[in-house]
Amino acid sequence: MHCPGFRFAAARAGIKESGALDLALAASDRPASAAAVFTQNRFPAAPVRASRAALAESGGLAQGIVVNSGNANACTGARGTADADRMVRRFATALEISPDLVQVASTGVIGAPLPIDAIDAAIAPAAARLREDGFSEFAEAILTTDRGAKIASRSVELGGERATLLGCTKGAGMIAPNMATTLTFVVTDAAITPAELDGATRRAVDATYNTITIDGDTSTNDTFLVLAGGAAENDPDDPANTRAFARALEELSDELARALMADGEGVNHVVDIRVRGADSEDDARRIASAIARSPLVKTAIAGRDPNWGRILCAAGNAGVALRPEAVELYIGDVPIVREGVADRDGGGDPGDRASAVMTAPSYAITLDLGAGEASATALACDLSHEYVSINADYRT
Amino acid sequence: MHCPGFRFAAARAGIKESGALDLALAASDRPASAAAVFTQNRFPAAPVRASRAALAESGGLAQGIVVNSGNANACTGARGTADADRMVRRFATALEISPDLVQVASTGVIGAPLPIDAIDAAIAPAAARLREDGFSEFAEAILTTDRGAKIASRSVELGGERATLLGCTKGAGMIAPNMATTLTFVVTDAAITPAELDGATRRAVDATYNTITIDGDTSTNDTFLVLAGGAAENDPDDPANTRAFARALEELSDELARALMADGEGVNHVVDIRVRGADSEDDARRIASAIARSPLVKTAIAGRDPNWGRILCAAGNAGVALRPEAVELYIGDVPIVREGVADRDGGGDPGDRASAVMTAPSYAITLDLGAGEASATALACDLSHEYVSINADYRT
Repeated sequence: MHCPGFRFAAARAGIKESGALDLALAASDRPASAAAVFTQNRFPAAPVRASRAALAESGGLAQGIVVNSGNANACTGARGTADADRMVRRFATALEISPDLVQVASTGVIGAPLPIDAIDAAIAPAAARLREDGFSEFAEAILTTDRGAKIASRSVELGGERATLLGCTKGAGMIAPNMATTLTFVVTDAAITPAELDGATRRAVDATYNTITIDGDTSTNDTFLVLAGGAAENDPDDPANTRAFARALEELSDELARALMADGEGVNHVVDIRVRGADSEDDARRIASAIARSPLVKTAIAGRDPNWGRILCAAGNAGVALRPEAVELYIGDVPIVREGVADRDGGGDPGDRASAVMTAPSYAITLDLGAGEASATALACDLSHEYVSINADYRT
Repeated sequence: MHCPGFRFAAARAGIKESGALDLALAASDRPASAAAVFTQNRFPAAPVRASRAALAESGGLAQGIVVNSGNANACTGARGTADADRMVRRFATALEISPDLVQVASTGVIGAPLPIDAIDAAIAPAAARLREDGFSEFAEAILTTDRGAKIASRSVELGGERATLLGCTKGAGMIAPNMATTLTFVVTDAAITPAELDGATRRAVDATYNTITIDGDTSTNDTFLVLAGGAAENDPDDPANTRAFARALEELSDELARALMADGEGVNHVVDIRVRGADSEDDARRIASAIARSPLVKTAIAGRDPNWGRILCAAGNAGVALRPEAVELYIGDVPIVREGVADRDGGGDPGDRASAVMTAPSYAITLDLGAGEASATALACDLSHEYVSINADYRT
């Protein structure tokens, strides 16, 4: 598992008391096109502010990524800013590149200062061990409360050249005192301009990560970063190549997002909430998201309870005009609601059949609004006892 | 406990399998000024549609209220509309008034047809038993999964005349297959025009019920209805009277809203989320609401865990611009965050002192944004194991 032109390393910097890997490095042989989607939270952590500024300064290029886990460097004031800068400069020095070409990310405890001396001391030795087949170590070193590393890859043909996409993600799982940070890193040897990469990245995140809802909270540190080094030497100016790359990136993101959700705290079911027959994609997306975020729907998923009233009620809270008498609802392929009322014509007890569908680890709930042609999907999961236990019973 | 000019009755119509009271009637001796705030859900139940239309038709007057519990008459299609109309007509006939003067409300199971014949048969005999001291029975008959009746009253002097406000509320508690319906009814002998009553009611609901969040879902049936009969004979055109009445109505609503939240499923803590130092009241309200709705904050409240990172993170998700370095946070009166970072100067361990505050059934969390002068408060509660048990383990 490698991606031509990229090398990886991981180390134990002593941030995690467990002694597990907590420092991850990635480097491209050359300045790579880079695009990122950062958290919209108004308390962005110091590394998010640093990475956003570097990307603007470099004009969408990056060559190195330095990540620590175990401490989010969030809500840490001026000291946090200086610490993020020190991580960047140390790795830039090791790679002999400009600091503007280094992206930095952190995840873990919020509000505590980084053990920056230990991190600083660990970076150069780890950089000396960067190697092409180090990606699984990189993927492990970014984890916090995750059950395990989550890696996906894709191979795509771009005008006769074969390119690889390699991605890893960590933790919608949240456990006090850690925050809900989602970090995702993708490297590829595809050749693509920074502008096209930015567009493809935003669309991929919108269609995948932005539809995930484990509990509606976004973190101070959320980062989705893509580096495209260009070693595949495809033609970056051929629109067909850009489209093929964008499709592959979205597929990769979808696989990572599903793996992330399935790994969430106390998650036993990952459910596609499909809304179709909407007047606009925006309407469909808002309704799918409202259903996926509803605590009552999420507890119904946990209880394998085909409580269609909760689903319609959540849809009705999305702020989108609806014609109740046009609505149809399916759990799996079991029709539950037709023309806005309980479907009693399906044969047998639709509730029993829907309950059986809901025992599966993944299935779909489909709401047809009977209005237009637009559709959208959001991923939902269950709200279970385990979620409450992890988040309430654990004390900071 | 009575309110001059109003009479009440309750009955067992057999909607609830338990045989408990499930039909509630109220009548004013004369057409009363009436104002209501109904659910914004896009799947409003048949009684909500009927009551909204009647209020528009009558020009803000009502003389009777008929409520059933045990069945929400929601998502019931054309039959539901006819059933709500039949309840209205039967009570209007019993009172010998126009159907436009009857407000109707339902709460309970969603998606099942009303046992309308039984309800229809029970209305006239109950109407024959309307009496001045029947309010506590009325308050009991509107309940579903509530632990008990929630009643509040106020006495207010309006230009030398004394007026009474008498209110009851039911159930943010939700248990499958019942929905999250909140019903509130207030009667008063104050004299006030329909237009002034409408304004006072909307402001009272905005300041109280609309800040409640148990789980962010609003129901198909939510209704807050006020009838003002005028028997107190105060001057309805004196602005001082209107202001005094509006204050009393808001106080009454606040008391009822707090009682409602404390009675919610698995609720052990009711917390005032106070946001101050905001640029605008709208900003303050959005941030207070974002904190109050955050599942991570709610599990922290359940766990008595002063996890200030979660609170700031939730504030950062409200879509309001913030200066992190200006923010202060208090749990009770314990300073936790100053200038956006953990306050280490408070003496002792602020975490321990905050944990002690969080053992109380009610307390305040105060976030000072350090920007402007505006403030707002939202009520939050805990997300506990009991909530998940009730909503997941119970099967429809």
